[in-house]
Order: sequence, then structure tokens, then C-alpha cells
Amino acid sequence: MIEGEKIVLGIIGCGRIGRLHTNNIIYNFPEVTIKTIQDIEVGSLMNWAKDLGIKNITANSNDIFSDNDINCVLICSPTPTHIDYIIAAANTKKDIFCEKPIDLDPKKTNVAIDSVKRNGVTLQVGFMKRFDKTYSLMKKMVSEGKIGKQYIIKITSRDPYLPPLNYIKTSGGIFLDMTCHDFDLLRFLTGSEVEEVFVMGDVFIDPSIRQYNDFDMVIVNVRMANGSLGVIENCRKTNFGYDQRIEMFGSYGSVYADNPLVTTISLKSDNIIEIDNQTYWFMERYKDAYIEQFRSFFNSVKNNKPPLVNGVDCLKAILIGIAAKKSAKESKPVIL
Amino acid sequence: MIEGEKIVLGIIGCGRIGRLHTNNIIYNFPEVTIKTIQDIEVGSLMNWAKDLGIKNITANSNDIFSDNDINCVLICSPTPTHIDYIIAAANTKKDIFCEKPIDLDPKKTNVAIDSVKRNGVTLQVGFMKRFDKTYSLMKKMVSEGKIGKQYIIKITSRDPYLPPLNYIKTSGGIFLDMTCHDFDLLRFLTGSEVEEVFVMGDVFIDPSIRQYNDFDMVIVNVRMANGSLGVIENCRKTNFGYDQRIEMFGSYGSVYADNPLVTTISLKSDNIIEIDNQTYWFMERYKDAYIEQFRSFFNSVKNNKPPLVNGVDCLKAILIGIAAKKSAKESKPVIL
Amino acid sequence: MIEGEKIVLGIIGCGRIGRLHTNNIIYNFPEVTIKTIQDIEVGSLMNWAKDLGIKNITANSNDIFSDNDINCVLICSPTPTHIDYIIAAANTKKDIFCEKPIDLDPKKTNVAIDSVKRNGVTLQVGFMKRFDKTYSLMKKMVSEGKIGKQYIIKITSRDPYLPPLNYIKTSGGIFLDMTCHDFDLLRFLTGSEVEEVFVMGDVFIDPSIRQYNDFDMVIVNVRMANGSLGVIENCRKTNFGYDQRIEMFGSYGSVYADNPLVTTISLKSDNIIEIDNQTYWFMERYKDAYIEQFRSFFNSVKNNKPPLVNGVDCLKAILIGIAAKKSAKESKPVIL
Amino acid sequence: MIEGEKIVLGIIGCGRIGRLHTNNIIYNFPEVTIKTIQDIEVGSLMNWAKDLGIKNITANSNDIFSDNDINCVLICSPTPTHIDYIIAAANTKKDIFCEKPIDLDPKKTNVAIDSVKRNGVTLQVGFMKRFDKTYSLMKKMVSEGKIGKQYIIKITSRDPYLPPLNYIKTSGGIFLDMTCHDFDLLRFLTGSEVEEVFVMGDVFIDPSIRQYNDFDMVIVNVRMANGSLGVIENCRKTNFGYDQRIEMFGSYGSVYADNPLVTTISLKSDNIIEIDNQTYWFMERYKDAYIEQFRSFFNSVKNNKPPLVNGVDCLKAILIGIAAKKSAKESKPVIL
Repeated sequence: MIEGEKIVLGIIGCGRIGRLHTNNIIYNFPEVTIKTIQDIEVGSLMNWAKDLGIKNITANSNDIFSDNDINCVLICSPTPTHIDYIIAAANTKKDIFCEKPIDLDPKKTNVAIDSVKRNGVTLQVGFMKRFDKTYSLMKKMVSEGKIGKQYIIKITSRDPYLPPLNYIKTSGGIFLDMTCHDFDLLRFLTGSEVEEVFVMGDVFIDPSIRQYNDFDMVIVNVRMANGSLGVIENCRKTNFGYDQRIEMFGSYGSVYADNPLVTTISLKSDNIIEIDNQTYWFMERYKDAYIEQFRSFFNSVKNNKPPLVNGVDCLKAILIGIAAKKSAKESKPVIL
Repeated sequence: MIEGEKIVLGIIGCGRIGRLHTNNIIYNFPEVTIKTIQDIEVGSLMNWAKDLGIKNITANSNDIFSDNDINCVLICSPTPTHIDYIIAAANTKKDIFCEKPIDLDPKKTNVAIDSVKRNGVTLQVGFMKRFDKTYSLMKKMVSEGKIGKQYIIKITSRDPYLPPLNYIKTSGGIFLDMTCHDFDLLRFLTGSEVEEVFVMGDVFIDPSIRQYNDFDMVIVNVRMANGSLGVIENCRKTNFGYDQRIEMFGSYGSVYADNPLVTTISLKSDNIIEIDNQTYWFMERYKDAYIEQFRSFFNSVKNNKPPLVNGVDCLKAILIGIAAKKSAKESKPVIL
Repeated sequence: MIEGEKIVLGIIGCGRIGRLHTNNIIYNFPEVTIKTIQDIEVGSLMNWAKDLGIKNITANSNDIFSDNDINCVLICSPTPTHIDYIIAAANTKKDIFCEKPIDLDPKKTNVAIDSVKRNGVTLQVGFMKRFDKTYSLMKKMVSEGKIGKQYIIKITSRDPYLPPLNYIKTSGGIFLDMTCHDFDLLRFLTGSEVEEVFVMGDVFIDPSIRQYNDFDMVIVNVRMANGSLGVIENCRKTNFGYDQRIEMFGSYGSVYADNPLVTTISLKSDNIIEIDNQTYWFMERYKDAYIEQFRSFFNSVKNNKPPLVNGVDCLKAILIGIAAKKSAKESKPVIL
Repeated sequence: MIEGEKIVLGIIGCGRIGRLHTNNIIYNFPEVTIKTIQDIEVGSLMNWAKDLGIKNITANSNDIFSDNDINCVLICSPTPTHIDYIIAAANTKKDIFCEKPIDLDPKKTNVAIDSVKRNGVTLQVGFMKRFDKTYSLMKKMVSEGKIGKQYIIKITSRDPYLPPLNYIKTSGGIFLDMTCHDFDLLRFLTGSEVEEVFVMGDVFIDPSIRQYNDFDMVIVNVRMANGSLGVIENCRKTNFGYDQRIEMFGSYGSVYADNPLVTTISLKSDNIIEIDNQTYWFMERYKDAYIEQFRSFFNSVKNNKPPLVNGVDCLKAILIGIAAKKSAKESKPVIL
């Protein structure tokens, strides 16, 4: 983007996540213009978009790509459409924010990454957890040597609800739709690459998941290039909300990020102490991270600086996920 | 306000708090129009207001009162100007949000309250702590009987910085500028009135405060109309940030609101465990409460419903403050 | 006591607290001999004492005072008997541990203290909370300057049960039987003396307490000789166990002692987080302090060193309690 | 043991752990007689034993086995001596408490177990963690269904110090000397058996450990017979004390046992909050469990009830450890 230019956005795909981003941008970045939004179901968008003051609503993504006023696109459509949209945006010299994953297929992902590189545009991928203030502080502390030499990182990530079976059918499975976030965090927080992965998993919650060769509970062990170890635990469903905790332990200390709680209220009564629950859902837990992700993206775009999460970061998370799938299938460690 | 009418705001006074409200309204209530802002130092406002898209900037408050488009005013100017502005707004049938306190003088405050009543407009006063989600939950729990019969409420409220001596000179002293928030919380949370007050206080931090017959550390004991007791502790300065805690204890249990922490990070190292600090400053601690206060105000205005904090609430906090001053001076309990 | 001499104990009074001490000494200080125990109800002691290997059981306290083998006595009988027993022990040159209070009457207390002084024996009084490791650490931190200049100390102390009315009738009331512990902690932790006291109190739990001009809930404000302030809150009964918390706040920081919990177990389930309860009863909360109190006492006795809590400490707690009673009655601050 | 018979103990081996048990028994179980203690280094025992009032000190274990007064033995000598001592005790009809492990060789262990069975005596093995009140409560809660169907158990266990290399040389390695405790807890808490084990480990702390084909940091994944999964993380050394945490997560909730802290003290100062450290060493962390283990053992012995931890429990922990070693060596999962 030319320095000093104003960001003019086109948003492709206005489902749950597209609307979240739209709202966040309108309320937090008034200096950014949303010129056009696209979705194949235009009808349901009309009232919502009008209330937000967005003028152009279209079912045709070319209305965005062919618009020279628009210098930046957000791709929030279903995963299989990402590659074509990225290429179209790159070829029309628009900077790109794309929801994760770029694609489940590493080869196609590489094609998109190449197109971005060739056209000299910016591509940021939606691993919003990197922008959480807690994990940012953790990374800073580890970088400053507060835990010394890294020994192990342990991530617990559990969802409050099982996603619909339809989602699981096309998502690529738990390693590609859920653990991929943790693979990315692993790389971000350790500053190192995954070299070996081993999986133990099972189906505890919904037996019908088995038909997709998928799991609803997995333990993923990793060995990193810097010699440290890692354990990720994922579960599709809890009875107590969204459970997101990380510990990094090293020669000098251990840093831990616990779940934030909804309030600081506690109640002592009848010989029990109750404390308020942790935040229940990812949109609540990562509310600020979703905003910070765009602060960082708009900053990269405006100043032609590399984004904090690029296409290769996404590709690597997918490659680890594919290795995890292989380990689960063959019941042995897989070297990347 | 006529039902269905759109809120069109005039904002009087754009110092620190006026700007905070302006920003909060622009980012969170896009359906509300800010038509005109006033401040005696117009010059310094120009760029800031332009960036926010506010068109009319004036040094003359009459530009607001005489504008029939404007149906609602925010009064964020210095305390001594409040009464006149409230009366002017009431007489021109505008709904009013006024920063606390309305005035340090109860008689003048009553004049303003009468004017509001006579003109049938809404007046909400800026005790934003009532809108904090933690205290709201506390009130709900107490109302639902979770602690049974109320025995005692204990409030700790400590500021991170000493305010400038100039401020203390005109603020009415610690009971009227600081404890008044806690007097209001006391009334809000207990649902009862203060009947007796006793003060023990001292000057620990800055001896020059003594010349204004003021304190920088006070303990205020109260007896409520519902029979329960209360203790407020206030200090002007800590070495560790903003300290805001409340406990309510009764026959069936005890509910406690601790300080929220900046993050959930903890670090174990070298035989010490460190946890992240509490939020440092009131704007950070009550960031959401400042927004919720306007959600509630706009809601009252649009639906002609009484506000959660009205002029009488403010008057009562001031009257308790005056009684506290008397108790401190005479070193004995004072009955209200 | 002559250096190198072995401690040979006589124990006077074997009610609840006498038996607790006897057990603690047998299990923790095998080098100390309990030669004789006395209680007016000898019968009920027989089996218990025999099981513990104690040979001499008597109803007559003179069997202890006239026994030259016995060089140390524990006085655990009812308060009105303390003075005579202390004098008898002092006159027979025995070191003395006496349960608190020595007496409710300061004059009589002084007589006992004089007798101890004249005979050159050691007298330690049973304010066991001083020996709690948490409060010891707190005192150490404050002494080392961790909180800088002391501003305020806040003590919350609530019992899980109402004592029997019979107890209240003769105990001297809440200030002398309950708050006196906190007056002693106040003096211990601040290293300073109480100069002024003001009380607000009420009867919330059992109206029949009113007939003894007593309270079941009190707030006691104090001003210390070092200029710092204090607030003690006492309640006779909670619905959630023994509640014992202390905060000391000063120019450089704030140190806080929370309630210890029974275990570190927490349970997240059904959108609630429960943590284990605090210890329920003083014998559980101060289990170790009761032992440490004797470690310190035996150490003083063996090495002829002054005890950590002497007769004057007890006298001062009583004098503050009497001032508190006066303040409650007259509803004004009382200078000591 | 014949009902009503008094327990008369012989203690074999008086190193660190033998002395700990001896002290615990003397101070907590005065009804149990310690008649004779044995150690190959009698000289260093003399003063210590005399102070405790133990009369018979011997270097010859036969003095214990041939003594018909002694009906119970504690075996606290080095591991390679356990088998012979167990057999000797069983053959002389003495009940047995043996430190863990019985032996590193499952065959020899079986021989000892057979001898115990044949002679109808009691054998309890020293997995003291089962007697910790926190883990006991956890087991109770899981048994009562508080977490519903078990999904996963996660154990973190880290020592504060590296043991001497000499110890590692003969201990059987980390899986047999350290993880075996966690294997036992796994079986105890889940009520199920380990069916599959996979290990990822490394040497982070002392490279000289490699020469013994051992690790100082391991992640052990397990699959249990009841379908649930498990992860144990062990490390030989931290910079912040003994770190012992367990989480059990299931369909209905999650129960967590955090580290107990030394005191409940926290200090806010200079924009940092410090809390007191966790207990530093296993003797401090499991102080009460060491006593409860003997309460349970003496109870089993007196009432001829099966002990809570028997020889087969020990054997199973060893078998899992051997499987873990194999998994680590072959870098693949091992089925038991």
C-alpha cells in the first residue's frame, strides 16, 4: 500500500466470523472504510449492513476485486474458496487478511503463498490467539529469559460445545480445525519448529465422529527443533466452558497462563467457596485478541511491514496437523 | 424524549473525562449523534474533534442550549458550573447526564434537582461504579439472598496517585471527591440509607494536605437504616496501583469482589511466585463501566425510564460526605 | 530454671484446652515430663490420663505447688482461679504458662504480674496466634520494611459458632473474650501501642445477648502510637467456618494473610467453580501455633529468656478491651 | 496379628526414610512399641536412638526376625535387600511394611509376594502419596461421579533437586524411581489399569545422565483399561521447589489438585504481586501422608484387613515402568 493511503476494505463472506470482524472494525478502527461486503446470501445481510452504514452489498466477489478503490480484502468465506480469492486479490494488488486455514492442501496453500509473494502484497492469516495479551506477555517473558532454557510447553485447549457433524466432515478433522491453533501457538511461543509428533486420541463424546476417522479428545506430544518438548491436549466439549491454559517450564522457572474468569466475585456460604466461572466461549475469551489482530494487520499494511502471522505460518500448522493425523492412524511418532 | 426520536448530543466540557465519554460514545453507540461539543479552550479541541468527525465546536454553551436539534446534553465541565448548566438544559427540555458531583452545596443541588423535576427531563449522575459488572453481580447475589441478612459491607478503595494539591483545594476534600463514590456504592449495594457515620483519618502521604483540613487516609464507619454496618477505607496513594475491593457479609454467607488482574499470568522462579498486577488506574479498572453507564443512560432517555443514578442519589452521597467531614472534625459519630 | 534442668510439668485444669496442651506436649516434646495433672473433676480424667501414661491425677492443686520436682506449671483452669494459681506457682518458684486472660480485672492482673516479677519466674500467656507461621512471616516482612511506613492494619476475625450464653455471661463480653486476641495481634504486628479506640457494634445473631450489654458483631477502630490506624471486625458466627484474615498496608506495599484452605482441590462443573473450604475451627486453624507456643515457652524457660507474650501483654489487651467497652457504651472514641 | 495384640516393631534400615518413619511413629502412635532397630552402621544410630528411648540397636537383622516379641517389621533398607527381608519376615509370621519398590525385577517381586501370601501376613508398600488428603479427596470426588465419565488424568511431578548420579545408576532410572509413584497414583485415582504407554523424554539438566540411558525430563502418555487417557510429566529439577499437580477431567467436570503453598501470605508492592512459594521438598509436601500411611497400615495389621497398597500394586507400577523404558528406547507405544 502506498504510504499515507487510506485503507478501503472489501469483505468476502459475512457469516459468523465475517460479521464479527466487520463489527470490530467499525467500532474500533473508524479510520478504515468498509466499502463493500460480499456474501452469497445477500438477502440476510441487507438490514444488518444498512444499520452499520455499509453501502455496497453484493453476491459477486468480482465487484470487490475489480474495484480499484478497494486496496485491502478480508476473506471470511468457507475454506475451499480461500485459494481462488487470495489469488484474485493478490493479482489485483490488494492486501489480504484470510481466515485460517488458507487451505487443507499444502500444495494449494503454496500456490496461494507464491501468488502473494509475486505480487508483493501482504497476507495475514487469522490465528488470532497470537494477539491475546496474555500469550503476548508470556512470549515476552520467555524471550527475556524469565524461564531460562525451555524444557516443555503444555497447552490445554477444550471447547464448550461439540461442533456440528457437518463441520467435522469437511473441516479436515480435529488436528486441522482445532489443534492447528495450538500448533501455531507452539511455534509462536517457543520460537521454534516442530520436528516430531505423536498422538494418542479417542472418541469419548459422540461415537458418530468415528465414521470420519476423527477424534474428540487428543493428546499430541511434540519435539521441537530447539530440543524442548510439548504436550497439547484438546477436547471438543466440556461441561464448564472454554478451557484455555498454557504452561512453559524451563531451567529457571515456569510461566503459566490460567483461564480468565468472568468476574472476580467469590461466594463463601454453607461451607463451600464458589468462584465465578471462566469465560464461556472463544468470542468472549479472545474478544480483545480479535481486535488486536486487526490493529496489527492494519499497521502492517499501512507501513508495508511483514505481518505477525503469514502464509507460511499457516502452512506449517497444516503440515503438523497432517503429521498428527498420520501418527494417530499409524500409532507411532512421525518425523516432520 | 419522544419515543422513536434519535438521540442528538451536545457535550459541555471536553477535559479528560469529557473526551473519554466522547470516545466511548462514538465507538460504542454509533446510533447516537454528537452534534456539538463545547469547551472554553476550543483551540486544543479542533484536531481531536475533527478526527472524530464532530462538526460543531464552540466555546459558548448557549450554542448547545439554543439548538433545538440537540435533545440531550452531557455536562463534563468543572463542578461549580454544573448547576447553571443543568438548569439551562432542563429549561430547554434536554435530558441530562452530569458528572458527579452535581454540586458540593446541598441547597444548590436541590435547586438543580427541582428544575429537572419541574421540566420532566431525565438527569443521570456519573457514579459509573454502579455499572461495573462485578458490583452488578454482587448486588444481584445479595438481592437474591445469597448472603442472607446483611451484617456488614467493607469497601477498600485506594488510588495509585495523589491528586494535585490544586484539585484537593477545590474538590471539597477526600470525603466529597473520593469517598462519595463509596457512599454511593454503599447505598446501591445495601439498598439502604446511611444513618450514622464516624471517621478516623490522618495525613500519611503529603503533610501539605493538612492546611486544607483534609486527610489522605480515612476509615469511615457507618450504620445503615437496615441495621447493617459498614466500613470504608480510602487512601490517596499506593505503591501498587488501583485497589478496589468490596466484601458483603451476612447471616448466610459472604460475597467478595477482588481486584481484577491485568492478565492471568503467574511466574514461579527462584522460590518466588509472582502474579500479574491488578489494573493500575480507574480508567482501566472501570473501562467497561464507563460504557455501560451510557448504555443505561441512553436506554432511560429513549424509553423515558428513571435513570439508575439520579440527582437525589448524588445529593445523598454529598450529605454523607458532609457528615463525615463533621465527624472527622469533632472526632465523634454524627447522625444523619 | 537452672540451666540443664529437665522440665517437669504440673497441669492445672484439664478441660478442652488443658487436654489439647497435654496432648500436644506429649506428642511433640517427649523431653518434657508431665508429672501431675489436676482437675476438680478427677473422675473423668482417669482413663484419658492413664492412656497417656500420666501417673498422678489429683483434685488438689496443692499437690502440684508443694511438689519440688515440678518446676513448671500450666494453668488452664477457669479465669477467676488464675490469679491465685499464678501467685502460688510464683511463690514456689515454678515457671508459669497461663491461659488468657490472666484476669478481667487489671488491678488483680497487676498483683499477679508483681508476684511473678518478685519471684523471678517466667510467665507466658496463651495468645497462641502470635506463634502462627503466617503471622510470624507477616511480622518479619513488616519489620524488614516490605510495606514501608505502616498506614493501616485490618483484621477480620469471625467464629463459626456462637458460644453458649453461659460463657458470654462470665467472659467479660466480646471485647475481652474474642477481640482481645486481635488487640494482642495488633500490638504484636505493628510493634506499637493502642492510643485511641472507637467501637460500632450490634446484635445480629442472638437477641438474648443484649441482656448482657454485649454484641455479636463489632467494628473496632484504633489509632496506634506510631501514628498508624487499625480496624478490627469481629463476628460471633458465620455460615462458612472460621474466618481469619489480616492486611497491613503502608507506603511501600501491602501484605495480606488469607485463610488457609483445607485442601488445594478445585472442581469445575456445570458452569461453576468450587474450591475447598477454609479450615473450620480454631483448633484446626491454629493447630501448629498451639505447638509452637510451647516450643517457644519451653525455650524461654530452659534458657531463662523472656517469653514472647508476658503478663503485661495480657494486661494491655485487657485495658484496650475495657476501653472498647466504654466506647461502645458511650458511643464515642476513648483515649487510653 | 491376633486381635487385641499390641504392635511391636522391628525397623530394618535407618537411613533418611527409616528415621523419618521412626520419628513419625514415636510422635504419632505412642501405642505402638519400637523394640529394635537395625542398620549396618550401628555407630551413627546410637545417640539418636537413645534420645528416642529405643533400647535395642543392632547391625544384625536376624536379631529382629528371631525375636518372637516383634510381630511387625518396617523394611527401609536399600532396594536390593528387600526380597530377602520380606521372605524372612513372612516366614517368621511378621506383618510387613516395605519401602517402594519391593524390587526392580518383577520375577523376584513375585517370589516375595508369594511368600507373603503363603504365610498369611500383611504386606504394605510405601506409596505414601495415596494417603495424601488432597488425593484422597480427589479419588472420593471422582468415585462419587463429580466429573462423570473419566476422559483424562494429567499428572505433573517435578523434583526440586537432581538426585546424586550414584542413585540414578542403581535406581532403575527415572521411570522406576520417580514415575513409579505417578503410575501408582494413576491406578489409584482412576481405579483402572494401564494398557498402553508411550514416552517422549530427554536430558536437559545433566548430560552425564545419558551414560545410564536415562532421562531427566519425560512425558509419559498412557491408555487405561477403562478407556481414559493419561499424561504424566516428570522432571528431575526445578528452580522453584517441589511441583505436584494433578487434574482429572471427564464428561461432567474437572477436578484439580494444585500445589499447597507454605503460607497464605501475599505481598503487593512496586507493581508486583508476590505470593508465598509452594512447599519445597517431598518430606514437607507429604508430611501428613507419611503419618497417615502408618495409621492405615497399623489399622490393617490390627484388624487383619487388606492394606491400601499391596505387593501387586507395587509390581504393577514396576511393570509399567519397564514398559515405559522400552517405549523410550524403541520410540513407539508399548502394550502391557
